[in-house]
Amino acid sequence: MTAPVPQLATRLRAEHIDELLLKCTGWAYSPDRGGTITREFLFADFRQAFGFMAQVALMAEKRNHHPEWSNLYNRVSITLTTHDVSGLSMKDIKFAQLADRTYALYDAQPA
Amino acid sequence: MTAPVPQLATRLRAEHIDELLLKCTGWAYSPDRGGTITREFLFADFRQAFGFMAQVALMAEKRNHHPEWSNLYNRVSITLTTHDVSGLSMKDIKFAQLADRTYALYDAQPA
Amino acid sequence: MTAPVPQLATRLRAEHIDELLLKCTGWAYSPDRGGTITREFLFADFRQAFGFMAQVALMAEKRNHHPEWSNLYNRVSITLTTHDVSGLSMKDIKFAQLADRTYALYDAQPA
Amino acid sequence: MTAPVPQLATRLRAEHIDELLLKCTGWAYSPDRGGTITREFLFADFRQAFGFMAQVALMAEKRNHHPEWSNLYNRVSITLTTHDVSGLSMKDIKFAQLADRTYALYDAQPA
Repeated sequence: MTAPVPQLATRLRAEHIDELLLKCTGWAYSPDRGGTITREFLFADFRQAFGFMAQVALMAEKRNHHPEWSNLYNRVSITLTTHDVSGLSMKDIKFAQLADRTYALYDAQPA
Repeated sequence: MTAPVPQLATRLRAEHIDELLLKCTGWAYSPDRGGTITREFLFADFRQAFGFMAQVALMAEKRNHHPEWSNLYNRVSITLTTHDVSGLSMKDIKFAQLADRTYALYDAQPA
Repeated sequence: MTAPVPQLATRLRAEHIDELLLKCTGWAYSPDRGGTITREFLFADFRQAFGFMAQVALMAEKRNHHPEWSNLYNRVSITLTTHDVSGLSMKDIKFAQLADRTYALYDAQPA
Repeated sequence: MTAPVPQLATRLRAEHIDELLLKCTGWAYSPDRGGTITREFLFADFRQAFGFMAQVALMAEKRNHHPEWSNLYNRVSITLTTHDVSGLSMKDIKFAQLADRTYALYDAQPA
């Protein structure tokens, strides 16, 4: 029997995390602060990187779920965690998946 | 003999415009205000449209050549002209080509 | 007796519009398309104008209520209407007020 | 006799740095990587923070001088250094001053 689907804003339990991270293959898990996931995204230049950041900012504001993120020229690093549950929640998994889909655009044609 | 390449900030003459517009096939020429070109870009949603706008804004500021542009949800319309020469210049042609290349990213994967 | 407060996504009736527009003094009403309101915002330069646009884009995406807007260098024009009700709704009034509050920042120190 | 004004893309010498940092009072100097300066900016919310980031992105692209920066909700941290000279240059000082002037807008009316 599979584990029941966790609620959006509930802290994910260890057995869910392993399973869910299989859907976010580019993301690295860290046990810091109860659990975070991080991915670095590469772009052709700053302009592309900031276009992606603008899209991510809109995602974040709409969901009221804001990343810890940094940028240097053509690199954007995003770290996700759910402060309210002191760890990872489904909000982070869904955000990671949407960021991945958004990045697919830029990744396909990096020049 | 082909016409010499026009200077970046010089007003394009009629014979150049026809030739150059062949490189900007999506753009429509209008004789308004000495000459303008316009293109409408379609996106999957507002988020993609604004990601594109952020990239275009960076292009504009870097070149100090700013478009007349409008947006409604998933549509962005850009009109180019060079105010200083009261018509089209190579600045507009180059801007159009760079906007087209930027859009190619989004156009390829519209969902 | 004052008129009851209209629902967020209901079409505003004429008697509400006059009253509500007093709260949006910079906005011009037009009967086009069942009713729209428009305001032009001026900035020190393109950079400020686009900073404002980024804030407005986040507002729009969060509320799922998107403006018709245009920009030329240091000017941003915003037109609001509620397509679903074929006219103005409280969504437009609230959006206008939030845009005004956002603009107050830039207006205070235009250089 | 005062020291001569350093060139824009030259590595600043120790005696210049002390003097110039007096013009960037909010910035903290670190000797890391030959010299960096860092400042954290606080905003009312994510929306204001991202409006500021959009302005900073335009500054960076125009000058072809890109910061290392990060954001979490209403906080933006900017670190400046000039990679080409392995330390601080006048590009960093000028960028810091322009970021400060841009921030003055938001700082004045933080709500």
